Order: sequence, then structure tokens, then C-alpha cells
Amino acid sequence: MKVTHYREIPRDPVGEEGASGITVRRVISEKDGADNFSMRVFEVEPGGYSPYHNHPWEHEVFILEGSGSLVQGEKEVPFSKGDVIFIPPGEAHQMKNSSEEPLEFICLIPNPK
Amino acid sequence: MKVTHYREIPRDPVGEEGASGITVRRVISEKDGADNFSMRVFEVEPGGYSPYHNHPWEHEVFILEGSGSLVQGEKEVPFSKGDVIFIPPGEAHQMKNSSEEPLEFICLIPNPK
Repeated sequence: MKVTHYREIPRDPVGEEGASGITVRRVISEKDGADNFSMRVFEVEPGGYSPYHNHPWEHEVFILEGSGSLVQGEKEVPFSKGDVIFIPPGEAHQMKNSSEEPLEFICLIPNPK
Repeated sequence: MKVTHYREIPRDPVGEEGASGITVRRVISEKDGADNFSMRVFEVEPGGYSPYHNHPWEHEVFILEGSGSLVQGEKEVPFSKGDVIFIPPGEAHQMKNSSEEPLEFICLIPNPK
């Protein structure tokens, strides 16, 4: 059993090409014995974004603080605190902080088999 | 893609034996096409608790609001807003709201294969 405040877990920059002003804390992972899926907490500064990309696994997201928009092709879907987001495998997506406050969200992914 | 405020999703009582004053919203599930794991949001009223039980799957938890304690045998580990909790498969556990405020947490589980 592990009980830890998420801010006690180290925060790493997301260095991926196409990302800007975004960091990640890997709060529950295979290192904890979580074999099936992993929990990460992302912080996005005002104007920051994740890469616009797609991949063959899903995202399960919960918005903890702030607001922003989910970009998908020509579409921008706004979201804010308390929203849950499901992005199926293979759907292109980008998370953007278009507000003037920090954006924080939980994002879970399946672990590689 | 699904973007919905978690409070728009119906809230069901947890009727399981040994539970008291606890409800669940199944915010992301197989119905959404989430094949690997599911996200639920639980609300526990002051004095309420989940059943003391164990099962062969893990929990990945994030405390959204309030505080309480995680019971495991003789041990009671306090938790509060912003804590992440990993409960490995097979470990007995109970979530208790020992405060005077509502407790809300996210809890994710793997889907049956």
C-alpha cells in the first residue's frame, strides 16, 4: 500500500517534440507494482500544451484545476475543473491551456503488455 | 471522445454489505469503449465507509476532497485532499470518512479480462 501526496512525487518536464510548458509526475506506476495501468498528474502553464499526436492506447483524464481545450483536428472542445475525458485509442488529440491560470489534470494509460 | 462533468453522471448507492453512506459515479467504463480499466468517483458522507474487503485486483485512488483513513487490519493510515493511494491486489482495505466534511475520491480498477 502506498499513500503519498502527489506533490511529493518528482515533477519532470515533458520533453517530447511538440510539447511546451508541461510537466508530469508519475504518481502510480509499475514501480509501485501497478501492472495494468499508470496514473500521471500533468501541470500545464498558461499557453502551454501537450503534443498533438495519436497512439494506439486510450487516455482516461480528470481535470483537477484550471481550464483549457482539447484539440482534435479542426475541433476545440473546452474543458474545466471536474470534467472527465475519455480519448479512445487512435484518436488524435492535444491538451491546451488557453487560460491564464495553471491547468492540472490526471491522465491514466494502460501499461505496455 | 467524451468530455463530461463528473457530476452529470448518475450517482448510485454502494449497496454492498459492509458499506455505509457511500455512493459511486461510474464516469468512464466499458460503455465508453474503455476496455482496459474504469474510472469511478466515490462520495462518502461523514461517518460513512466502504466495505472492509479484499479482491484480486488493484485500486488506484486520488483524493479529490475531504479527508479520512484507510483501514488495513489494525492499521489506520490517514489521507487527505491531493493524496494518491495504491492498493495492490489481495490487500484488505476499507476507506473511511472520519471527518465532518464530505469525502470524494477517484478510484480506478482494471476491467475483467
